[in-house]
Amino acid sequence: MNVVEERILKDGKVYPGHILKVDGFLNHRIDVKLLMEMADLVYEHFKDKEITKILTIEASGIAIATIIAQRFGVPLVFAKKSKTKNIAGDVYTSKVESYTHGTVYDIIVSREYLDSSDKVLLVDDFLAMGNALMGLMKLVEDADASLTGIAIAIEKGFQGGGDKIREMGADLYSVAVIDEMTDDGKIIFRK
Amino acid sequence: MNVVEERILKDGKVYPGHILKVDGFLNHRIDVKLLMEMADLVYEHFKDKEITKILTIEASGIAIATIIAQRFGVPLVFAKKSKTKNIAGDVYTSKVESYTHGTVYDIIVSREYLDSSDKVLLVDDFLAMGNALMGLMKLVEDADASLTGIAIAIEKGFQGGGDKIREMGADLYSVAVIDEMTDDGKIIFRK
Repeated sequence: MNVVEERILKDGKVYPGHILKVDGFLNHRIDVKLLMEMADLVYEHFKDKEITKILTIEASGIAIATIIAQRFGVPLVFAKKSKTKNIAGDVYTSKVESYTHGTVYDIIVSREYLDSSDKVLLVDDFLAMGNALMGLMKLVEDADASLTGIAIAIEKGFQGGGDKIREMGADLYSVAVIDEMTDDGKIIFRK
Repeated sequence: MNVVEERILKDGKVYPGHILKVDGFLNHRIDVKLLMEMADLVYEHFKDKEITKILTIEASGIAIATIIAQRFGVPLVFAKKSKTKNIAGDVYTSKVESYTHGTVYDIIVSREYLDSSDKVLLVDDFLAMGNALMGLMKLVEDADASLTGIAIAIEKGFQGGGDKIREMGADLYSVAVIDEMTDDGKIIFRK
């Protein structure tokens, strides 16, 4: 059992509707030391591959993506959720359906910060249906960049998004994969 | 001239309406090495004070706040911009007017992650009118926590928010303070 799995069992809370709250260490209060331990595991998995850029999506993915970018010594780009007047010029855009919020939103990345020379590691804190990741993968494809791999802190394996993306041939590494969450709050990890 | 001031002159872009774009290194594409250099300057300023928690606001403040939390060896909490179904229970809340987007939004922090034992360093990437900071300061006050200080990457000094907050007695340290941006794109820093 790795550090993230241990921490989920210690501090994660299961709510009805297969909701896992990890607000205490991953996406509201953030344990930066844990992020560094995760980044080491991600580095170990991808260290022999070429990575020039980390790409994530605001907001809760930014912290883990920042520490992973630091570990690999490469810049981080985060896709923004809507067009603000502070982003001018050409952007790549893609639509994402939010499982958490029940909405559809646009994500954008400036063409300036993603191009065909990039070997991209996608990073996010959570993977459930895979909608956010599919949106990020489309941005990478539109930019004609290479997708080196995908690193996720916590994958809800039972929701199928991760396996769908693996079947597409992507090198997807999730530090913790949850295969089952029972109604009485038991969490079972994938071996 | 420090590393941030140098980088603003090199890569910052001035647009009409006193808009400074630093998307190339601070809030779209993020230069993590630069964040680490900023964190060293912030640490130098606050190292003799007691800090138990970094508090920032999503989304673009999260990266710099993560690296500053790492530098101080304390957890990070980020205020969320609206109530999602993944946050249950009691929260502190405060209203913020966005200068960039021309809207008013709520920010929230769970009562679980901010309390009267906390000595808080507020962190954000930008300070203009100070609206986001004032919202964060209210959360700290509502939690009966202590405000140790405030660290900002780039302060638009000519918009007055920073000086207003200093007059309230806060220890506000901005790595770069811009006192003037001319229509022809010249940037003048505060000494």
